[in-house]
This record gives sequence, C-alpha cells and structure tokens, in this order.
Amino acid sequence: MAAQPRPVPTDFHVFDTTLRDGSQQEGLNLSVADKLAITALLDELGVGFVEGGWPGANPADTAYFAAMADGAVRLKNAQLVSFGFTRRVGMRAADDPLTAALRDSRAPVACIVAKSHDRHVEQALRTTLEENLAMVADTVSHLRSEGQRVFVDCEHFFDGYRENPAYALEVVRTAAEAGAEVVVLCDTNGGMLPPWVGEIVAGTAAATSARLGIHAHNDTGCAVANTLAAVDAGATHVQGTVNGYGERTGNAELVSVVANLELKYGWPLLPEGSLREATRLAHAIAEVTNVPPSARQPYVGMSSFAHKAGLHASAIKVDPNLYQHIDPAVVGNDMRMLVSDMAGRANIQIKGSELGFDLSDRDLAARITDKVKEREAAGYTYEAADASFELLLRRELDQLPAYFDVHSWRLFTQGHPGGEGFPGGRAGDDSDTECTVKLTARGVSQRVVGEGNGPVNALDAALQNALLHAYPVVEDFGLTDYRVRILDQGHGTDATVRVLIQTTDGRRLWTTVGVGQNVIEASWEALSDAYLFGLLHAEAADPAPHEQSEQAPGSTTLRDLEHV
Amino acid sequence: MAAQPRPVPTDFHVFDTTLRDGSQQEGLNLSVADKLAITALLDELGVGFVEGGWPGANPADTAYFAAMADGAVRLKNAQLVSFGFTRRVGMRAADDPLTAALRDSRAPVACIVAKSHDRHVEQALRTTLEENLAMVADTVSHLRSEGQRVFVDCEHFFDGYRENPAYALEVVRTAAEAGAEVVVLCDTNGGMLPPWVGEIVAGTAAATSARLGIHAHNDTGCAVANTLAAVDAGATHVQGTVNGYGERTGNAELVSVVANLELKYGWPLLPEGSLREATRLAHAIAEVTNVPPSARQPYVGMSSFAHKAGLHASAIKVDPNLYQHIDPAVVGNDMRMLVSDMAGRANIQIKGSELGFDLSDRDLAARITDKVKEREAAGYTYEAADASFELLLRRELDQLPAYFDVHSWRLFTQGHPGGEGFPGGRAGDDSDTECTVKLTARGVSQRVVGEGNGPVNALDAALQNALLHAYPVVEDFGLTDYRVRILDQGHGTDATVRVLIQTTDGRRLWTTVGVGQNVIEASWEALSDAYLFGLLHAEAADPAPHEQSEQAPGSTTLRDLEHV
Repeated sequence: MAAQPRPVPTDFHVFDTTLRDGSQQEGLNLSVADKLAITALLDELGVGFVEGGWPGANPADTAYFAAMADGAVRLKNAQLVSFGFTRRVGMRAADDPLTAALRDSRAPVACIVAKSHDRHVEQALRTTLEENLAMVADTVSHLRSEGQRVFVDCEHFFDGYRENPAYALEVVRTAAEAGAEVVVLCDTNGGMLPPWVGEIVAGTAAATSARLGIHAHNDTGCAVANTLAAVDAGATHVQGTVNGYGERTGNAELVSVVANLELKYGWPLLPEGSLREATRLAHAIAEVTNVPPSARQPYVGMSSFAHKAGLHASAIKVDPNLYQHIDPAVVGNDMRMLVSDMAGRANIQIKGSELGFDLSDRDLAARITDKVKEREAAGYTYEAADASFELLLRRELDQLPAYFDVHSWRLFTQGHPGGEGFPGGRAGDDSDTECTVKLTARGVSQRVVGEGNGPVNALDAALQNALLHAYPVVEDFGLTDYRVRILDQGHGTDATVRVLIQTTDGRRLWTTVGVGQNVIEASWEALSDAYLFGLLHAEAADPAPHEQSEQAPGSTTLRDLEHV
Repeated sequence: MAAQPRPVPTDFHVFDTTLRDGSQQEGLNLSVADKLAITALLDELGVGFVEGGWPGANPADTAYFAAMADGAVRLKNAQLVSFGFTRRVGMRAADDPLTAALRDSRAPVACIVAKSHDRHVEQALRTTLEENLAMVADTVSHLRSEGQRVFVDCEHFFDGYRENPAYALEVVRTAAEAGAEVVVLCDTNGGMLPPWVGEIVAGTAAATSARLGIHAHNDTGCAVANTLAAVDAGATHVQGTVNGYGERTGNAELVSVVANLELKYGWPLLPEGSLREATRLAHAIAEVTNVPPSARQPYVGMSSFAHKAGLHASAIKVDPNLYQHIDPAVVGNDMRMLVSDMAGRANIQIKGSELGFDLSDRDLAARITDKVKEREAAGYTYEAADASFELLLRRELDQLPAYFDVHSWRLFTQGHPGGEGFPGGRAGDDSDTECTVKLTARGVSQRVVGEGNGPVNALDAALQNALLHAYPVVEDFGLTDYRVRILDQGHGTDATVRVLIQTTDGRRLWTTVGVGQNVIEASWEALSDAYLFGLLHAEAADPAPHEQSEQAPGSTTLRDLEHV
C-alpha cells in the first residue's frame, strides 16, 4: 500500500548539534552552565551523540569541554563530540593548534567540517582542490592516530555535488579512506528539496563505500523531510537540533525526525521510554535557551494536539483517534481542549466538566460560551489561563465567594538615571516602586503598602500583605511566571495589554489572565484573580469560608512592609 | 542529475485557506474587518483562490461574505470561495439551509468538505457509506445547478485510503462525476510522510480522472514536503495558509510552497512581480492576525537570511551566493548582518560601515565587539534595534552630543477597581497615570508633568514636553510600536525586562531597546534613547547643535499638559 520503510538498521546514529550549530540561532546566547544543563537533558533524551561546541575557536566551548572532561555531567547515553575545521591550508594537522584543540577537548569523537564544493575551496578557502583533499586526509588520519573517532561533515555537499559531482564524491572517499566513521552530507544553504536529496544520497551511496549521514537546514521548509529522504536513500546518521534551533531558518528539528522514524517507521532509536519524555525535555531545554519552542511545533508544541474547532471536539468525545495522527502521550504531550470562540458548547461542556461543573444544560452552556466570546473579543485568552476560566464559570454560576473587596490601589515609581543604563548588570537603586492598596477582607478594612523592584512586584506585595491578616494562607502564594503581550501591535502605546500570571502555593500552579489599557492595570487584574483562585482552593486549609463583609467605617491600618 | 521537475502545468491553483482553516489556530481571533483586510493582502499576493470562511455556520463569516458581495474588497487576482459541509444526512441538498448559505454567500466558488474515510462516515456522521456518497453527489450537483464552481475537500483521505482504498476512491469519483472541478485530498490529521503522499496521490490519479488537489497539515513537520510530493505525483491545486496558520501544528505554509515551486521548479504561479512582495505581505497579514511569523520561517522570516557566525560573514563579503540558497530580494527579504556576540569583527565592521562609521581599525572594532557582547549578556539586543546600536557606537567613539540631561523621573498610577475588569471594552476611567520629569536641555532646567493612559504613554508625554521648548522638532516624534519581553522567564517578577520601542518623526522609523528590572525602567531607557536618536538625525532641521549645558540653579518650570 504505502511505501514500505526499510527494516531498522542495526546501527543508527541520532546526532544532536543543538550546542554547536543550534547555538548560531539569532537570539540564542549560551553560557557554559547553560551548555552543561542542556547536555544533561540531551543525554536524558537518549541521543547517541552530543556535539558540544568548537573548542579552541570559542573560549566558552573550550571551558565547556574541560568541565565535561572533569565529569561535570556524567553521560549515560550520549557520546560527546568536539567540532572543528580541517587543518589550515599549507600546515600539517599535527602542527595546527585548532586541530590539537579537538584532541585536547578529550571528547571521544571529533566531527570535522570539510569543504566539498569546489567553488568554496577556491573562493572561501582560497586554495587548490588537491590541497583541500590533503587537508581532509591529513586531519582525519591525524585525529584517528591520536585515538579519537572521527566523523566528517561535508559542507555544501549537495550544491557541490550538483556543480562538480566527481569532486564532491572524491572528498567523501578521501574522508572515508582516511578513517572517518561517518561522512555527513550537509545541505548547508538549506536549498534542497526531498527528491533531490534522495537522488544525491543514493548516488553517493552507490559511488562510495562510506557510511553516510545527513545534516539539513530548513530554508525551503523541508529539513525534516530532507532528512527522512536521505535515510530512505541509505543514510544511517541523522543530525539535527532540539526545537530546530539554528542559523537562519534553523536545523532539522531532531525530535520530529526521531519521532517520525520511531512512530511511523517503527524504528526503536531512543532508549526504551525516552520518547515519552520528549515534550518535557524539549521544553526543559527551551527554559535554558530562553527560546521557547513554537506552540505549533510538531509533537512537542503546546498546541500541537490542541483541538479548537467545535466540530472536532464533538468527534473527539467519540474517539480521539478520529482526529489525531498519534496518541500524544507517546511523546509526553497532551490532547488539550481549547476554550475559545470557535469552540461552541461541546468544548465548554468538556472543559467545565474537567473542572467539576455540570454544564449539560444547553442554555447555561450557551450563555457561558457567549461570555467567553465576549471576553476573548476584548483580549482575554482562556486557552492558557484555566484558573481565570474557572473564575469566569463561577461568576456566571454565582458560585464565587467574595473573599475581599478592593477599594483602590496606587502605584508610585521613581528613577534617577545616572549614566548609561545597564553597563553590564542590574542598576540596583536606580528605581524603586511602592504600592498602596485599600481593601476590605472579613469585615476589616485596611490600607497597606508594599514595595518591590517593579510595579508588579509591588502590587503583589501590597495585595499579599493586605490579605495576610484575614487569610494567613496567602503567605505561601508566590508568583512563578509573568508574561506580557501587547495586543493591537503597531498602535504605539495605545494598545491593549494582556498579562498572564502563574502563581504557586507550593502544592499547585495556576495561571490567570488580565487585560487592560496598560501593563499595570492588566497585571492588577491577573494578580487579584490569582489570589482569589488561590483562596478558593485553599478552603481545605482555611475552613471558615468568607461571607459578605460589612465595611468597618473609618477603620484603616497602615502597614509598612519590607520588600518581599 | 537531480530529479527533473515536470514542466509547468497549464492551469495550476494556488488556494489560500488562511481565513478558514488558518483561523482555527489557537490564539487567532479575526473580526470581519480583519478578514477583509487579509483578503485584500492575499489578493495582492496573487493567490488564485481565497477561502473566506463558513457562511451560515459562523455569523461573522456570513457578514464577511455579505460585505464582499457588496464590494468591500475588489478582487483583482483571486476568486472568493465559501466553505461548507456536504448536506445533512437524510436531507436533500436543496432543503439544507447550510447548503443554501453557500450559494447565498454569492462567492463564485464553493468548497465542500466530504467524508472519505469509512470509519468517519460510520462513527462521526453516523450514517451509511452509500448515504455519504449520495450526500456528496447531491450537494455538488445542487450547487453546480445553482451556478457555483465546486471543489470538494476529501477529509481524512490518506488515512481513509489506507484503511479502505476502494471507498476513498469512490468518493473521489462521485465528486468528480457530480461536477466537482477539483477533488482535494486532505491529510486532515497530518500524519503523512512525503513518500506515502506521493504513492497515494499517484494511485488516485491512476484510478480516477479527477483533477486532484492537496491539503496538508504539519503534524510530522512535513506539510510543505507533502504538498510538493503530491504535486510531483500529479496534483495541480495546492492549499495552504500564509505563515502556516492553522489548528494544532498548522497548515502547509503557502508562501513556502509557492516560493519552492516558483524558484526551484521555475513555475511562474503568481502574477509577475508578486513573489517579491511575499515578505512584506506575510508580515502585513501577521499585523492583522496579531500572530507574527516565526523569525525562522522560510523565505519571509526576519531571521531567515540573517547571518550570524563570524565565519559566514567573512565569506559573504566575498560572494553572497556562497551562503544563501537564493537571493533574498526575490521574495522581498533582506540579507541581514546580525550584530551579536557570535559576530566577531567582520559583522561589526560591516554594520558600522552601513551606518557611516569607519571601524576598520582592529582595536576599535574589537573594543566595540566586546561592548556589544557585554550588553547582550545583560539582556540587550541590537539585532532588532539599529538606532540603539548606532548610539552605542557613538558613545564608544565619543560622537554623541549631550542633548539633554535627565535628573529624575517619577511615575504615579492609581486604579479604582469597580467590578469585573473589562466586560467587553476598555475600562475608561479605571486607572490613570502621571509622570513628572526633571531635566536640563540647552542650559534650562525644567520639571514637567505628562499624563497618559499608562506608564509608557505618560513617560513619553513628560519627556516630549520637557524637550519641546529646547527642541521644537520633538513635537513630530511619536511612538508607533512597543514590545515587551520578560527575559529569564520562569523567575516570577524577579526577571529582567527588555523593551523595544519604535518611533517615527513622520519621515523615518527607528527602533531602540531598553533593559531594566521592571517594565518602567526598561521603557524609560528605550524612550530616552529614542528621543536622543531622533534629535541626532533631526540636526538638519535643527542647525544649532546642543553643547554641554550648565545647570540653571533653582530654575524650574512646572507645566501641566493634556493627555497626548
């Protein structure tokens, strides 16, 4: 029927270059500590090789390899790989300090990049085609003689093969004959399409006896497909990066490649149970890089199994496999029912019942659906803010106790610009913020002040302190994440601002949303809903539920508070 | 050599479903006005078909089609398409109100979705395989008899073909025989890989005489490649969305598909000159959807031709084609030299000379490179903020006049939470913000106040008013865009905040960056640098350059100002 995939190769390499090629992405800046953290996560994912960087050329990388050699991360699955060039033109590999750096890195594997496109040899390296071959042979055999396993990346291979196939193949042969275990064919400019990759890899496999690998970039949107095409044509070594990090459009996204081979071809490439950790690990790596995976990223994206259209939601209630190509649990992801204005009653009912509310009454469900649509039109989003959705439900169902009643809040910030802003660190005393809140809780009115290193900090401090007397449990509440988005982008400072706040009480995490004309207003809303939700679910610890309070006239308590 | 693409088909359809399937993306909420704006942009891009929505099922879409019928957007290139289901089970198409809605939309083309997977017919539609065929035939012929062109989307076709190829093919034949011009094979769950798509499309082309189309999703990361595989196997109609919008992992990214066919296969599919507008239009559409394309998106992403590694930058100075698969200008994009800590001297020198500075001195270039690395480590980014980079250069070169000297600023906000936040619109008087600034400009010290509907507004108003007397030209300065990013995500409110501000003086636009412990501090820095840069480049209009001012002791002028 459909194309029969080949049986699983006996030895297949999953080679990660997040820390080397991936790190060339715009906006990505990794410290040595970051690299070590990512190395541990990649090892946990179970990749066979972690290309850690370019020792000698990049001082941070030299330090990284030294730390790895000292046991900073004990690898259980992966082999560490150091990356570098072929030796310099006209020098002996044995004399080239950058070649020595590969060996000195003490990584068991060296991956060296060689020119395989004649024009690059002549124009970028400015040497002869013969000298380039000598550079390949010399560097590979030298590193082998020093005890490292060697892989060779043939840079610009596909473009080179098109312009001068004989030379490109000669580079492959030379590398293999000098002892390179794998010769990796690189689509460095990323301009290939899958049928072309398939043809060229097949041609190379037929004309040489080298073990072949593939290194693809996403400039035509086909990096994953190009990688699979190379595998279909005989490659048994795939390179990529987690979350597709990399220069320009990025490298082939490694989890997508591996998940496709495991789940579609049935090839067990990762250690048993590792694929189930893929979503967690991809996001954990993103926490370190500070560049989150796209919500739409295949397999591991937050939205990649999220069902929005009301139609699909009804069908999913019948059989999840009707609308999913795999069970998201096999990659550690979730099928999410999104609450949105496309959802219709089915989604709202499912979501409500997940939260313990019976919304089977059609009119009720319709009323709530309308409310959600109205709020979303104003900029709210409930897809990422389950706690706010629950509060919305409770408000509509009149099931929300009135824990506190805020009369007013005021925020004051001042700054004393001294010089250049941040020469290289935090400004310290350059600005400080104070917030006063007046509210009533359990019948007692108070006006308190809180301070912080910024407006949201200060709002939080003030609110927490205002509620502490009535609800001691708020002492455990803390903000763990804060995200701002300017809606109506492009309208200067006249836009709507949406804030998402994640709060914890030490046991659970919850997210609330706030929308306003400015970031402070939006933050206030998300914050007070966060406290409301926290109090609601802390009832078990706080058995005397709050009832409608009377205002204690003229009763105020002024409190100063240290910065929390 | 490489696979020879087929010659360009005489009639090829580029079919955009951004407004229908694309709108099912998490986070995307389009008003009727948004849809009309996007329609105009899609028409400008030159697609052949714009699937505008689902009239009858979605009230906003019904209104959209009514507006289009009234001439809200005059289409020059595209045909408008209305989307809908096959008629309801057991009803006649002539009696089904949703079918009537397709005709009433007055779109020249109707695209109806039909079940083609036997299990879906039985479990989701809960009817017989024969009735489903009757629904297809009835709906198609009815719409044809009413004068619409009809396309049919065969939902879940590939999964259906695998489980029951005879039935899937029967649906295709039925649709074609009833008058469907194109039968679109849909990989609705997105689980296909390119070789399987190629086989199944080829099999369908051999077994039926229908004109075939392809509609792919990106769940395996292969949507673009699957689309191309279908074209290679005989499809002459491609569906996709701009920026890959769509449910879960999204639809095939239409610009990538079309750019690949135009630039790699040499097929002129868009009107002459349209591909050059692709980058601008993809971003313009994103301005409306409020969901920006990924910076790494092929062809049109901000980073997709951005060269970071110092190595590549040196080679590019030699020949741009050494490191790019196409000339970015052909899709309206730019080759960007990124200033970053990976850049090395080559990038900095190129960037500096673009701005009119001679940085050929190695020590100078090295010193500036170090400064950039230091600031980037602190959270600054110069890749998106050319004006800030120029100010950095000028500060290092001591070529920045001291236009003004800020002594202090103070910000005050208050809120009176009344009820539920935003029931459906802006809160109006719920909060207001006031900022006072004390500064010296041209020897005169002033303390002025500005107000705004939020902190950044107020800071801007105050600064503008403080500078107005000394530099009347600042009257023309206005903020056009404002973006906030919390760095160190996941550290609660203790994170670093980075702000990017775009300012205009009516003639040019410039972007500045600010970093701080909180959004106000970061905004202040970006704002004052924005004014500095604006003044610097307004010299031509303001020929008396500012010199180091003396403080006029005790001289203050208090000014109230209306909200600007």
